Amino acid sequence: MNDGTGSSDIAPFAIAMGDPAGIGPEVVAKAWAMREAQGLAPFFVIGECRAISAVWDGPIASIDSPDAARAAFDDALPCLQQTMTGDIVPGQPNADGAQCALHALEIGIGLAKSGAAGGLITAPVGKTQLYSVGFTHPGQTEFIAERCGIARSNAVMMLAGPSLRVVPVTIHIPLGEVPAALSIDLIRTRALVTAKGLVRNFGIEKPRIWVAGLNPHAGEHGNMGREEIDIIAPAVESLRAEGMDISGPYSPDAMFHGPAREQYDAALCMYHDQALIPVKTLHFDDGVNMTLGLPIVRTSPDHGTAFGIAGRNIASPGAMIAAIRMAEIAARNRVAWADCPA
Amino acid sequence: MNDGTGSSDIAPFAIAMGDPAGIGPEVVAKAWAMREAQGLAPFFVIGECRAISAVWDGPIASIDSPDAARAAFDDALPCLQQTMTGDIVPGQPNADGAQCALHALEIGIGLAKSGAAGGLITAPVGKTQLYSVGFTHPGQTEFIAERCGIARSNAVMMLAGPSLRVVPVTIHIPLGEVPAALSIDLIRTRALVTAKGLVRNFGIEKPRIWVAGLNPHAGEHGNMGREEIDIIAPAVESLRAEGMDISGPYSPDAMFHGPAREQYDAALCMYHDQALIPVKTLHFDDGVNMTLGLPIVRTSPDHGTAFGIAGRNIASPGAMIAAIRMAEIAARNRVAWADCPA
Repeated sequence: MNDGTGSSDIAPFAIAMGDPAGIGPEVVAKAWAMREAQGLAPFFVIGECRAISAVWDGPIASIDSPDAARAAFDDALPCLQQTMTGDIVPGQPNADGAQCALHALEIGIGLAKSGAAGGLITAPVGKTQLYSVGFTHPGQTEFIAERCGIARSNAVMMLAGPSLRVVPVTIHIPLGEVPAALSIDLIRTRALVTAKGLVRNFGIEKPRIWVAGLNPHAGEHGNMGREEIDIIAPAVESLRAEGMDISGPYSPDAMFHGPAREQYDAALCMYHDQALIPVKTLHFDDGVNMTLGLPIVRTSPDHGTAFGIAGRNIASPGAMIAAIRMAEIAARNRVAWADCPA
Repeated sequence: MNDGTGSSDIAPFAIAMGDPAGIGPEVVAKAWAMREAQGLAPFFVIGECRAISAVWDGPIASIDSPDAARAAFDDALPCLQQTMTGDIVPGQPNADGAQCALHALEIGIGLAKSGAAGGLITAPVGKTQLYSVGFTHPGQTEFIAERCGIARSNAVMMLAGPSLRVVPVTIHIPLGEVPAALSIDLIRTRALVTAKGLVRNFGIEKPRIWVAGLNPHAGEHGNMGREEIDIIAPAVESLRAEGMDISGPYSPDAMFHGPAREQYDAALCMYHDQALIPVKTLHFDDGVNMTLGLPIVRTSPDHGTAFGIAGRNIASPGAMIAAIRMAEIAARNRVAWADCPA
């Protein structure tokens, strides 16, 4: 496994700026300022340069193409300009900014698909604002999947910090709807994409996956819920029969302490908070969202626009730096999809 | 707040041995062996002394009453003998052992109620074995509550580690049944007992309680579930109106990182794993289960009988030591129930 930090023989990474009134511009600029200390590979931001100069005094180099980013990167933050006409006031999002964020995203996807960018990192967008300009996808991930020609169900969200990777099987649905949303097929799909994603993006030859139960104590042999018996165990067993290094269902509260975490490469979780609570308990400031199953590398910092603190110079670039670094690791570990074991 | 370690002016603590074939005898003996290094207050174990000598070579002092424990404690592990007739084989529980565990529990409750013991610490029992000898309660906690004349709903489970205390509103039910089990009344009851428990047991004058939402992102204003709006927020608001320092519902994945934990004394959680995942992620080896709402101090280590490793001298006494220490802290902080602010 190549940790790949600090080198420059892959294409520069594209960062879609996200909402110009959020903390995206600030954390991108701060990440650039720490590029040497953090050993970051060259990157450029796509968006309205004014959004950065509104919150940051450092040097910005307006570039015309990703190729120019590498030469500019040492001395200034390279910015592929997307002009927006309206005012930019940190913390006050508007439709112009949302349109600009959407254009930046679209361009970033294109550059990553063409190989002109080594991968795509997306800063946070405001969904309310995006919806106001005609965006109809649940989030950036589904939009990216569509542009890449991948079915939504095959684009899988992984949250990763230095000591834990988690993949939720169900995501943004009410907790009460989780049991009915689970199926053997869905768990199998998520596990298969996860295993391939660990090979491609992290260079893990034979990924070890632990699967969480749904109920307290994983149901205690059916005494507290039957989903483990009827759905989760059959899914796990079928995958193991096919050669995957997968086990479970485990008691959800006994999977996330240090010695347990050392025994797997990713935990497959049944619902949003079963996955997000442990990873954010451990890695609140440096958690990265990576989309598995795409032809391109795509990561994002695991935080929102934080309009409430935008422009106050207090946003931490930790998660953005982690997202940039993870994109580079993934880019270096990528192997042809066809070469992956099932 | 008095952390109270190491003193001897309160009555010795009673430890109900739990199943003699589990790891209870071993972790009690190991805790005694570390009494000086850990600064533990005097305690004695109630159970069959043979269960301890079967797994431990140290000195055991058979005592007739708790009073004798203090004098014996420096030189030997005091044991209030409960004779059982059958063989004791670590890892092989039987009905005799379960009966012995039940007697020990009953005696421990009596001694704590009378004040002869400073509090009760319970080692793990095997529920299957207990049911085979006529035990009909869901667990030790409900049995203790009944013996203390407290309604089950007013005996509240708190899990606590050095950096986090959590109280689950619902506990051992299937995840799918959680939404229907929540009510404003239930949340209010748990919060009120929690607040009083923090005053009495931890000496926290004005406890700060954070309440978790049920759904991802706490429902996002009703877009992913309405329990926050219909049940949780009204419960929180009614308690705040009565003067409690309580807030929420918070996004469950944003409550358990370090800076968040510093802002509350206990997190009120909607279901078992929402509470248990973070506390066991952080404090797997030193988590303590404390029952709030009882007239007596009661703690237990947050692990089971572990029959699979009993007798192999590999069980860690960390959680038992933490339970003994927390019992002492609680005993020292206890004030008359009537003196507690609502």
